[in-house]
Amino acid sequence: MNEFQRRSAELNDLLCILNVLNWDARTQMPAGSSAARAQQMATLSALAQERLLDPAYEAAAREVGPEDRAARQALDAVSALRRVPPELTRELAALKGEAQDVWARARAASDFDMFAPLLTRMVELNRQLAGALGYEDYPYDALLNMYEPGLTVSTLRPLFDRLREHHVPLLRAIQARPQPRTDFLHAHYPAAQQRRLSLALAQEFGYDTRRGRLNESAHPFEISFTRSDVRITTRFQEHFLPGALFGTLHETGHALYEQGVSPDLVRTALTSDLLGLYAVAGASYGTHESQSRLWENRIGRSRAFWDLHHPQLQAAFPEQLAGVDAATFHRAVNTVQASLIRVEADELTYDLHIMLRVELERALIGGELEVRDLPEAWNARIKADLGLDVPDDARGVLQDIHWSAGMFGSFPTYTIGNVMASQFYAAATRQVPDLEGTLARGDYAPLRGWLTEHIYQHGRTYTPHELLERTTGHGLDPQPYLDYLSGKFTELYGLDHPTVGRKEQTA
Amino acid sequence: MNEFQRRSAELNDLLCILNVLNWDARTQMPAGSSAARAQQMATLSALAQERLLDPAYEAAAREVGPEDRAARQALDAVSALRRVPPELTRELAALKGEAQDVWARARAASDFDMFAPLLTRMVELNRQLAGALGYEDYPYDALLNMYEPGLTVSTLRPLFDRLREHHVPLLRAIQARPQPRTDFLHAHYPAAQQRRLSLALAQEFGYDTRRGRLNESAHPFEISFTRSDVRITTRFQEHFLPGALFGTLHETGHALYEQGVSPDLVRTALTSDLLGLYAVAGASYGTHESQSRLWENRIGRSRAFWDLHHPQLQAAFPEQLAGVDAATFHRAVNTVQASLIRVEADELTYDLHIMLRVELERALIGGELEVRDLPEAWNARIKADLGLDVPDDARGVLQDIHWSAGMFGSFPTYTIGNVMASQFYAAATRQVPDLEGTLARGDYAPLRGWLTEHIYQHGRTYTPHELLERTTGHGLDPQPYLDYLSGKFTELYGLDHPTVGRKEQTA
Repeated sequence: MNEFQRRSAELNDLLCILNVLNWDARTQMPAGSSAARAQQMATLSALAQERLLDPAYEAAAREVGPEDRAARQALDAVSALRRVPPELTRELAALKGEAQDVWARARAASDFDMFAPLLTRMVELNRQLAGALGYEDYPYDALLNMYEPGLTVSTLRPLFDRLREHHVPLLRAIQARPQPRTDFLHAHYPAAQQRRLSLALAQEFGYDTRRGRLNESAHPFEISFTRSDVRITTRFQEHFLPGALFGTLHETGHALYEQGVSPDLVRTALTSDLLGLYAVAGASYGTHESQSRLWENRIGRSRAFWDLHHPQLQAAFPEQLAGVDAATFHRAVNTVQASLIRVEADELTYDLHIMLRVELERALIGGELEVRDLPEAWNARIKADLGLDVPDDARGVLQDIHWSAGMFGSFPTYTIGNVMASQFYAAATRQVPDLEGTLARGDYAPLRGWLTEHIYQHGRTYTPHELLERTTGHGLDPQPYLDYLSGKFTELYGLDHPTVGRKEQTA
Repeated sequence: MNEFQRRSAELNDLLCILNVLNWDARTQMPAGSSAARAQQMATLSALAQERLLDPAYEAAAREVGPEDRAARQALDAVSALRRVPPELTRELAALKGEAQDVWARARAASDFDMFAPLLTRMVELNRQLAGALGYEDYPYDALLNMYEPGLTVSTLRPLFDRLREHHVPLLRAIQARPQPRTDFLHAHYPAAQQRRLSLALAQEFGYDTRRGRLNESAHPFEISFTRSDVRITTRFQEHFLPGALFGTLHETGHALYEQGVSPDLVRTALTSDLLGLYAVAGASYGTHESQSRLWENRIGRSRAFWDLHHPQLQAAFPEQLAGVDAATFHRAVNTVQASLIRVEADELTYDLHIMLRVELERALIGGELEVRDLPEAWNARIKADLGLDVPDDARGVLQDIHWSAGMFGSFPTYTIGNVMASQFYAAATRQVPDLEGTLARGDYAPLRGWLTEHIYQHGRTYTPHELLERTTGHGLDPQPYLDYLSGKFTELYGLDHPTVGRKEQTA
């Protein structure tokens, strides 16, 4: 180990430890310890940042040279973080604590005015942050780059236009059709059986519980402390089966990514998000999301999956699902319905929720939208896209924690993940012999093997764009995703024909 | 906060985080992650040590001045650790890993010769450590001081002589009497009910689960990450009720100590064992053990306790304990029986197991005993004290992990804890109005209040000796402990009269 590797390993250890503290706080910690834990995490974060910005680390990285990808990422992160004034970092940290607190109370009271002054300040500080980090075209680009290296407003705009042109008419067509039966999804499903079935399916996908575990938490998540310890959580709702079931498959997708990184990259800068001071092997938030969506939706919500696993499902819940065949279950868990709440949205309308947020936060950061005008803009977009009236801000502009936590620029990664998932899946279909046949037999090794070879093992060696180019020969391209959604919902809802989205064929 | 306080707070944060990693490794971590976790803990330990030995910390402590107890403890720890050559620290750390591994295999094979070379080296390194740390009379004193500040061989020798003179004849007298019924302790006790009952009793003692939680682990322990998060573990044996039940009450005693420290001492050098780089509020290992023993044995194994809680016990296990009244249960859980294994020993014979180990390890460190002669010395002492033949080294000299982990000097603290527990209890009995009456009513607040006022709240402000002097007017004095054991077992076994131990009355 050279000095750069030694220091990178130590940094990765500290970031992994921060993740342990985070996991513990969300799954185990008694309520009375939240202040003490926050203090401990602040101390360790400060220490990690101190080590990252230690001139000796930069010198060691220069010694290795920027043609080494690990060294270059370290140098980039150091240079970016050095541009942020410590005063701004402190102010942001302090504001986050206060803003989340006020946001929680404002949401409970459905009172946007209560939150508005803090949001205004948060937008202002994030504009300053964008200015400090630097950008070419839009300040929002600087923030995007923290979650999705290389992604810009100029890429997002046409992409979102295509998605909206596709999704909204498809949603309208679906809304004109009868809905499938879903009553049985709300029977009583004891948590213990839900847990057993979910974990069994996760293990069939290839989740290695010798290097992971499943716990419960209020908000499901995946987190890793090296590839040897990749944990997932879920939340069991005893009167709604799909929540924990598909939630677990979603987090399993994230976990397969983290468990699949090459052992050679453990404790290196290529399994550390140094800019975000976060231990993670995945290349970006969007790339990560592409894997959770791929396993949850492309596999877990497919007809082949339920044709195969229907006996397991029936064995777990014989009474609750008496007389519900694979096709009926598959239809039910693919219901599309416009709703107000993002986290409850289906596969099609989810993107509409995301795009709304992205466009509004971009406008806020760009100075084109004032905080006071935000609720009206929100409600107008919900009406236009989903056809719904927002009854109060709690079910509207106040529903997400992200802005109060200062996370401007993270929302796009959910939709980017959907798009990338279909690109990767299409490439795998072309390159893996009889991929569909293997999946229909429940043999997930060929798909997982392809993903590991082309994506997982590389950790953060390549940017998301490079990963796409290497595997598909293209940059971001929504066509495979649009084809998938059109095909699936046209069939499920008995629509006349794929409605839209085949732009390159009609042009 | 001055600079010393600021740095002490940061250090305490790091030590608390090490405890979180330790707790997680022993209760949650998947098996595949042990190497990665060991690495993470090594990194954080090294960082904590680096901060402790940072000249700026010593300067900040000097600025405050050694008349301040926190500063003095910091200065003492720094000075002691500076005396240990880094090469020795590295060698010891490396040897511990290897020795524990070899010990585990040697124990499995009951082959002392396999372990002997590593133990020889471990003794040698610990002699070097003692030399580096410094001592007045015996090298073993230097090691004792790491666990029990101020304790010396000169104090232990006469103390152990008195205990052995008391315990051995009392054991002989008991062995001549019929044993009580204990068959019902081995019925089937489902873990879930054991857990409910144990935790309910812990909460009656005053364990605050808003600042703690109970988990399972192979070896029960208590650990704290500030007074806001004090966790205990137990191990449920479904065919032996006392294990988890009294184990939980034992760990609860430790937990009450940690939860009872003054909020003013949180994140200070007075809730950090700086010499041992361990976050703990208790004054010493022995003082800590005095509290676990007090709550487990003085309260939990008392007749008054089971007279009061017998209905709860019956409600939890109506079939298993059908026809077993409070007196019968109380007798059964106070059975005295010579046995080979320390961790299964009863209240009386436990000290004999401890004293054996202490005398042998002192002789090893003092150069009076060779490792090759250890099994013979062990077996001879077991025969003399307990009247048993040791059939193999696995059930003899190889049974404990301590020596392979380099822990020379920690064994005495178990017996010191027993002695101190009775001194504190006697003092509380004198000072709390009608203490017995409150306990008989299940009102544990007066006892807990007294212990909090005189012991818990002070954290590591006072040495164990100072705590004893302040509360009892004496240093270590075994008489209250001997009176307690004689009185209890004379009555339970229908002996003619207290056998021995009233030295000051017969002299």
